[in-house]
Amino acid sequence: MTVFDDGIALEALGDGLLRGRTVPQWANMVGPFGGITAATLLRAVELQSDVHGFPVALTVNYLAPIADGDFDIRARAVRTNRSNQHWYVELSQNGEVKTTATAVFAVRRETWADTEIGRPDVGAPESIEDASAGFGVAWTRNYDLRFIDGALPAAGAGESTTSTTTLWVRDRPARPIDFASLTSLCDIFYPRLWLRRGQLLPAGTISFTAYFHAGPAELAEQGDGYLLATARAQGFSGGHFDQSAQIWSRAGDLLATTHQLVYYKA
Amino acid sequence: MTVFDDGIALEALGDGLLRGRTVPQWANMVGPFGGITAATLLRAVELQSDVHGFPVALTVNYLAPIADGDFDIRARAVRTNRSNQHWYVELSQNGEVKTTATAVFAVRRETWADTEIGRPDVGAPESIEDASAGFGVAWTRNYDLRFIDGALPAAGAGESTTSTTTLWVRDRPARPIDFASLTSLCDIFYPRLWLRRGQLLPAGTISFTAYFHAGPAELAEQGDGYLLATARAQGFSGGHFDQSAQIWSRAGDLLATTHQLVYYKA
Repeated sequence: MTVFDDGIALEALGDGLLRGRTVPQWANMVGPFGGITAATLLRAVELQSDVHGFPVALTVNYLAPIADGDFDIRARAVRTNRSNQHWYVELSQNGEVKTTATAVFAVRRETWADTEIGRPDVGAPESIEDASAGFGVAWTRNYDLRFIDGALPAAGAGESTTSTTTLWVRDRPARPIDFASLTSLCDIFYPRLWLRRGQLLPAGTISFTAYFHAGPAELAEQGDGYLLATARAQGFSGGHFDQSAQIWSRAGDLLATTHQLVYYKA
Repeated sequence: MTVFDDGIALEALGDGLLRGRTVPQWANMVGPFGGITAATLLRAVELQSDVHGFPVALTVNYLAPIADGDFDIRARAVRTNRSNQHWYVELSQNGEVKTTATAVFAVRRETWADTEIGRPDVGAPESIEDASAGFGVAWTRNYDLRFIDGALPAAGAGESTTSTTTLWVRDRPARPIDFASLTSLCDIFYPRLWLRRGQLLPAGTISFTAYFHAGPAELAEQGDGYLLATARAQGFSGGHFDQSAQIWSRAGDLLATTHQLVYYKA
């Protein structure tokens, strides 16, 4: 049991109800890190006895902060087809819905395949220092974070014309990658607004989507090695910005593409 | 009433139930065009008496083909906050769920704003011929489609190393753009696989997400003019590929960013 396993742990209470609890090591500024919540909702589907296939698409909506303590999750298979299955998931506390998700699980088949975009050409993670202690929140210490570009702006940093961050990342302690931990990694990036403005400003994800390009065999091949994560925003307006990101294997395989819409004040 | 308004028309049957019907002019190869379905689900939220704010994020999951005829839609406000509102929507026929959606509506506020990416530098739509009649399905004729790059591959076209398509697009007949028609435009692209492989192969969207960067005032400014739409895939594997796209105003404003995961056989 690593801290990641502890963060996504769920107990089956019968009748499809699962119970989890917040873990202090995953605390963010308000409530838990969004990535561990997304991973927990995905895991809630993986634990269902009638689950069919493996995750290909996940959307998580953050409705309200999760308070410290227990939470309940209900997952419902809205439709099961021959080759895929559609889920709706709700996380609630005291009857109040805090997070929802839709997930598509599917049977992966051998097909023509191609990765059209290229992985950023970067140096080895071993030559870069871990920066996970510099964020002032608990959860970043559950990762080894080695920034190539776009590290957290230091106090007094000026504005940046680009929102691109690229980093090597690995669970701490190291842990074989699976769909749950890959989901959490899709949310590894601090808000792109901070990089653009050179300062920490109020911002929080309201909707998150991940597409999984790798199947269980490809994930197993990664072991517990470093993954390369890169993200950028396209537009900031009216109190919301988007983020698009890719998660790559060290060998150069595209494991996931992911997008989110983030609320901000600036 | 244009053909678009007809396609998204819903009748309130009371108790939050809305009824729509498929329209032959929106037929795709199997069932209606996914864009008109997404627009109809968004409209179902817009029609709710307690709707709060304007759309900022929409995810639509395509569970099964919609058969010709009537369908029912139920929209539920899962949570209403001061500055945003989260919806869950189901479209069903004879009690079978065919499509689901989650939508985030929000109050837009004046903030620091920036469009970080650039609009493709292209010529005027008037200098390009409309290609909407060449698709062999009904719905494309409801648009004026003027391809700059990546038009539908002709018979015998070879493989392409890029999946990028860029086109000018406008509703036919011309109609002032609104959130519903912008949603439909987010799905205007034929499957990226066809361009890469130079042939028409089985493919269908399973999950679609749109982020709205423009508010109602910015949309009103567009009138019924041409918009510029550009899309590409990042990775194809295991029977699924992704697509990322942007919808721009003629003046160069980023109106929407959109992503989808598509099932394919190849």
